[in-house]
Amino acid sequence: MRQVLTVGSVAFDSIKTPLGEVSRIVGGAATFFSIAASFFTDVRLVAVVGDDFGETQMQVFGGRPIDLAGLQRVPGKTFRWKGEYGSDLNNRETIYTHLNVFQDFRPHIPDAFRASPVVFLANIHPALQLEVLEQVEAPEFVALDTMNYWIEGTPADLRAVLKQVHVIVINDEEARLLSGESNLVKAVRAIRQMGPTRVVIKRGEHGVLMTQGDGFFATPGFPLESVFDPTGAGDTFAGGFVGYLAAAADLSEEVFKRAVICGSAMASLAVEDFGLARLLSLTDENIRARLDSFKRLTHFDAL
Amino acid sequence: MRQVLTVGSVAFDSIKTPLGEVSRIVGGAATFFSIAASFFTDVRLVAVVGDDFGETQMQVFGGRPIDLAGLQRVPGKTFRWKGEYGSDLNNRETIYTHLNVFQDFRPHIPDAFRASPVVFLANIHPALQLEVLEQVEAPEFVALDTMNYWIEGTPADLRAVLKQVHVIVINDEEARLLSGESNLVKAVRAIRQMGPTRVVIKRGEHGVLMTQGDGFFATPGFPLESVFDPTGAGDTFAGGFVGYLAAAADLSEEVFKRAVICGSAMASLAVEDFGLARLLSLTDENIRARLDSFKRLTHFDAL
Repeated sequence: MRQVLTVGSVAFDSIKTPLGEVSRIVGGAATFFSIAASFFTDVRLVAVVGDDFGETQMQVFGGRPIDLAGLQRVPGKTFRWKGEYGSDLNNRETIYTHLNVFQDFRPHIPDAFRASPVVFLANIHPALQLEVLEQVEAPEFVALDTMNYWIEGTPADLRAVLKQVHVIVINDEEARLLSGESNLVKAVRAIRQMGPTRVVIKRGEHGVLMTQGDGFFATPGFPLESVFDPTGAGDTFAGGFVGYLAAAADLSEEVFKRAVICGSAMASLAVEDFGLARLLSLTDENIRARLDSFKRLTHFDAL
Repeated sequence: MRQVLTVGSVAFDSIKTPLGEVSRIVGGAATFFSIAASFFTDVRLVAVVGDDFGETQMQVFGGRPIDLAGLQRVPGKTFRWKGEYGSDLNNRETIYTHLNVFQDFRPHIPDAFRASPVVFLANIHPALQLEVLEQVEAPEFVALDTMNYWIEGTPADLRAVLKQVHVIVINDEEARLLSGESNLVKAVRAIRQMGPTRVVIKRGEHGVLMTQGDGFFATPGFPLESVFDPTGAGDTFAGGFVGYLAAAADLSEEVFKRAVICGSAMASLAVEDFGLARLLSLTDENIRARLDSFKRLTHFDAL
């Protein structure tokens, strides 16, 4: 089993969806990632919180194989985000983003984390993602997420870090923007020229598309009757995906396919409640049942 | 092997997509359906054309197990449709629809077709779909397509015919409109209350979702680098889906799953050229190869 180092945001989220509203709950990309990945492997979290992030909030990490030696606590307020979803849960409106202590965040990788075999760079400034890679020793496997803001705002930094990345995990809109290609097959080919040998496209309720050899592996989204809150679904996918890869004995093509299903299963569970609530109550049996459901959803006998 | 009776439009299409433009090529829902289904089983076509539909146009049906005894030829012009697609191939603009001889079309089912075991009611006025069912003798299996125009304009007729239908094959937007539910799981449940025991949702490039027992079967769309023309993709799906079912020894749950893959494979092939061109040049080997590709696309080892 390989340990996974992740660097990204820990935040307070306020969220409104058609099914309800919550205020100031614990969120953040690195939080969702770490908790999802911790079901599969040991996680090392590097992030920053303010002095308003107390013992109550810290409990979300409690009792899990998540090493918090890299979680900096500094004076000031924790990163805050407020978002609202309409009936189309694929689109959301950001009401505010207060970076707070995240504004001056510089990732410091503790010595004990520098030999991490697997690294997940959550969605932060690509220059900071590069700083992380400068501090780790020849990781076996590096995955990266990014967003429109960096694709458009800091393209040179992003191109530099992409050269050192094995897998990029982004959504379809980001893939089109990054590549300048509206067709996803062409977009993926262009992105592979930038460095990543493998591209994983998150398509929200429409599932996931991953490059696989010269072709693709794809899974539909899991049909859910009630999606309470899509916040963090992409990071939860990444947590299940990277966590499963880190725990696997090898990184074969088959293992990557199963990793996509693990990530999809975790994300489909996470959206069944607000914020981290569902992830925090998950049992191994819940995960196993959803994995079985994914197989029933997509498998057919040979034609 | 069961024969499939289909009733619907045969048309002249003019189409513009980002990859090209064609004028007055043979199209129509029943045409795409019949040709796709004819790769799997014997087809009986009931439709109407004008006297402008000559021997050249008739060649699209040539050399295939499609019985044209129900193809009426009447004075006047054949149904014409012109559409234009933007870079988002999921949306199209109708430039014109000239019903022409289709305006007064009344389906007459030839005596030899009345005992057809499988019926596909392509997208026509639901009152005409009902007239078809009144003329056939206890078919084993009836599938139906419809569209927003009938869902909104003739809801009572549509509800009447739905009571006699086993499977409805519609797109996601139509499912939401018909049910009044934005969530597809809820939409499907509501539609099943209207008559069909099984609901098949076409999601364009995002694949297909089918009810399966208490759950679902789903397949992603096939990743294509160049989609030349999506026209007829839904009817081609229905042709592969219903054609495979008609050819199957039984109608088990497994057979329905494979039928979705057959339909998806045929549709993914059809969009690789304008109009019927790709379907007309298809070999059994092409279909077999695409079916194998679908399996590679979606299957993973047990987790």
